[in-house]
Amino acid sequence: MSQVTTTDLYEVTMALSYLREDMRAPATFSLFVRDLPPGRGFLVAAGLEAGLDYLSRFRVGRSEVQEFAEAMRRPVEDLEPLRGMSFDGQVRAVPEGRLVFAGEPLLEVTAPLPQAQLVETYLLSLFCHQTAVASKAARCVLAAAGRPLVDFSLRRTHGPEAGLQAARLCALVGFTGTSNVAAATRYGIPAVGTMAHSYIEAFASEEDAFRAFARTHPGPVTFLVDTYDTERGVATAARVLADLGLGRGCGIRLDSGDLGALARRARTALDEAGLRDVQIVASGGLDEYGVASLVREGAPIDTFAVGTKVGVAADAPFLDAAYKLVEYDGRPVMKLSSAKATAPGPKQVFRGPGIRDVVGLANEEPPEGTETLLRTVMRGGLRTEPPDTLTAARARFEADLAALPDEARRIDDPVAPAPTMSTRLTVLTTVVRHRIEARTAAGQET
Amino acid sequence: MSQVTTTDLYEVTMALSYLREDMRAPATFSLFVRDLPPGRGFLVAAGLEAGLDYLSRFRVGRSEVQEFAEAMRRPVEDLEPLRGMSFDGQVRAVPEGRLVFAGEPLLEVTAPLPQAQLVETYLLSLFCHQTAVASKAARCVLAAAGRPLVDFSLRRTHGPEAGLQAARLCALVGFTGTSNVAAATRYGIPAVGTMAHSYIEAFASEEDAFRAFARTHPGPVTFLVDTYDTERGVATAARVLADLGLGRGCGIRLDSGDLGALARRARTALDEAGLRDVQIVASGGLDEYGVASLVREGAPIDTFAVGTKVGVAADAPFLDAAYKLVEYDGRPVMKLSSAKATAPGPKQVFRGPGIRDVVGLANEEPPEGTETLLRTVMRGGLRTEPPDTLTAARARFEADLAALPDEARRIDDPVAPAPTMSTRLTVLTTVVRHRIEARTAAGQET
Repeated sequence: MSQVTTTDLYEVTMALSYLREDMRAPATFSLFVRDLPPGRGFLVAAGLEAGLDYLSRFRVGRSEVQEFAEAMRRPVEDLEPLRGMSFDGQVRAVPEGRLVFAGEPLLEVTAPLPQAQLVETYLLSLFCHQTAVASKAARCVLAAAGRPLVDFSLRRTHGPEAGLQAARLCALVGFTGTSNVAAATRYGIPAVGTMAHSYIEAFASEEDAFRAFARTHPGPVTFLVDTYDTERGVATAARVLADLGLGRGCGIRLDSGDLGALARRARTALDEAGLRDVQIVASGGLDEYGVASLVREGAPIDTFAVGTKVGVAADAPFLDAAYKLVEYDGRPVMKLSSAKATAPGPKQVFRGPGIRDVVGLANEEPPEGTETLLRTVMRGGLRTEPPDTLTAARARFEADLAALPDEARRIDDPVAPAPTMSTRLTVLTTVVRHRIEARTAAGQET
Repeated sequence: MSQVTTTDLYEVTMALSYLREDMRAPATFSLFVRDLPPGRGFLVAAGLEAGLDYLSRFRVGRSEVQEFAEAMRRPVEDLEPLRGMSFDGQVRAVPEGRLVFAGEPLLEVTAPLPQAQLVETYLLSLFCHQTAVASKAARCVLAAAGRPLVDFSLRRTHGPEAGLQAARLCALVGFTGTSNVAAATRYGIPAVGTMAHSYIEAFASEEDAFRAFARTHPGPVTFLVDTYDTERGVATAARVLADLGLGRGCGIRLDSGDLGALARRARTALDEAGLRDVQIVASGGLDEYGVASLVREGAPIDTFAVGTKVGVAADAPFLDAAYKLVEYDGRPVMKLSSAKATAPGPKQVFRGPGIRDVVGLANEEPPEGTETLLRTVMRGGLRTEPPDTLTAARARFEADLAALPDEARRIDDPVAPAPTMSTRLTVLTTVVRHRIEARTAAGQET
């Protein structure tokens, strides 16, 4: 499947029209989230690495032109003007892992209008999805309060490709492992996982299953103990581990029932069997709310495995993100209609201590004591720096998270910081709005 | 990325252990949804075509073995037993497009245990996602009550690959078009789409934009009218269309505000301009609830474009699906723990008139007047029939939908039919449960 044709048809009809009208002047589009979903005190910027890969490779070749023509039911010749187009623009963006808030650009693309337009849909698809999932996973990290988390989401993500991203995004915010083999090897994330209920059921007894597993996998093992009866399963696991002289690095996994109560009883049983080093892993429908509740009640769980609800960002599976034209040919533009009005002009985010953000214009002087969030990551269609690493992104995430106010960090009913608008951006917005309103009233809208 | 390594690590550790223990007897796994999410009166079976593609190609080669070894931090030699494994089992499944309910297998895989286990995660990822999205889209079709629907979801799906699937699944339940070019050409779905707000903004005036668009795209056009002021936008669109002698096949698109009220005013304005043939397309955050409400109030909207909420199945973005071992080496097995108990044995679904379903055993005689839902679609690792078509799947969907009771069809608080269990399956479940409980109590679980 071509990444170039993985786009909305209207990007193509518009690009073609721009070319025909000779509208190739530079355009700046801004990608931002209008409002945070309920239950989010912050968003974690994500999608940029995949976005830059996409832009680097973007090229409308012969087969893409044919596909466009087929979709438009037009002769191939009509689409020829698009052929050979690649992306040679500039990109300014917030690096992955940084926290962002409503109305703050994650990315600004400046390129000849047809190019900047054509890349809209694919970029949105990457940023919406990845930022939604990273933000959900980040809340699990807060809820776990220092205990390790691992990603088990692959079976429930929106297809295997989304699963690969979910594993990466979980690692980006500090998860210590993933069950996903392909993601583990691609991104250098520790792979985790041992056995399913089917494994236990395939053997004549739970004990036979545990012993067989230990034979195949010398070294630390984790036994799944809830296939038939959890307390008996724990006792059987303890007996087998003790018998084999195993302990440190080993674990048992609870996957159903009242995880807090079961973990307490399992801890007692393991301790009484002299297996103080054997850890307890809990899984089964967990998200930040479940994890926070278990942590609050002091459940002796050493590692939380989260899957489904995190991998699909179940309570906020999409973001209200937009990719809006903010300047064309040096002229700031904006949309006025209803609740979706946008602010004109290329922007910058100025971040002060305690995550006090001001959204201003890209060419403003940063207010004293602030840092700028967007940096130039692509120029002339080429990356300005080597690909980012998960380690660097995680470090940025952790630094921003540490500075985030408590009310935005809390799991229940968080309140996100509201960025303010700089004076210059406020003035420009007013001026452009009046200009458009005056000309619309006159029946002529520039 | 290898499809084979896009799996949970535990599938690999288990498969390896099965091989070492010489447990290669046939195993049957059943893939089913435990419970329907709130707001669902039915599910639309989907994922099978992609699943059969995956199984047909499944082969553990040298590079997969290396990846497994890397993930497990084990020498490559330890993983060699897996090398060369492909899928040569049998698959029975419910064809795509049919309606399914809680506890009904969508798919049953019978193969040597290591193979049947290794394919679990990838199959779940396909079926969970695709069935969730198809079911959401199907509800939009019900809500639209015969008016056409088109898919605009690509920018918000969980990555571009999920967007491709969303377009296909929307078409499967009867959408008439998609904005997604790659999906349109791959699946033969009509591509739709014209212009974004950015297009209007890039021109000196809305009228200039409309005229330029019509120059580039001779023939029917759809003008987006809500960039600045919707009523003025409609008037401008009407003037340009009338001027150019356009009408039939043309449209205007409303993308924000009170769509019902705006559509009524737009219809009046268009009619007064003699443009009775110009259609009204509505988009902007619509799902089945929004569409149903517009239809109920009699809004003169000709086509609904739905995106975000359908593409991610926003209110139910995952299904509680499982892939459970139900028989190994001729022995029916089941899981007992807590709320997740499963029924043993290979199964069949018998459907009577009015979608009265009985879940029974695969080798039962069908009750009189019922049809069987699962059919053999793969034998010896090969498809038993040519790939399915969207047209055929849509016909199955429409036939089942027509037979579905009203309470399951309604948009608000639907009630799904509850399949019953056949006597033979009930008896087997009781027998297996007692056998396991007796042996668990005796500390030995066969």
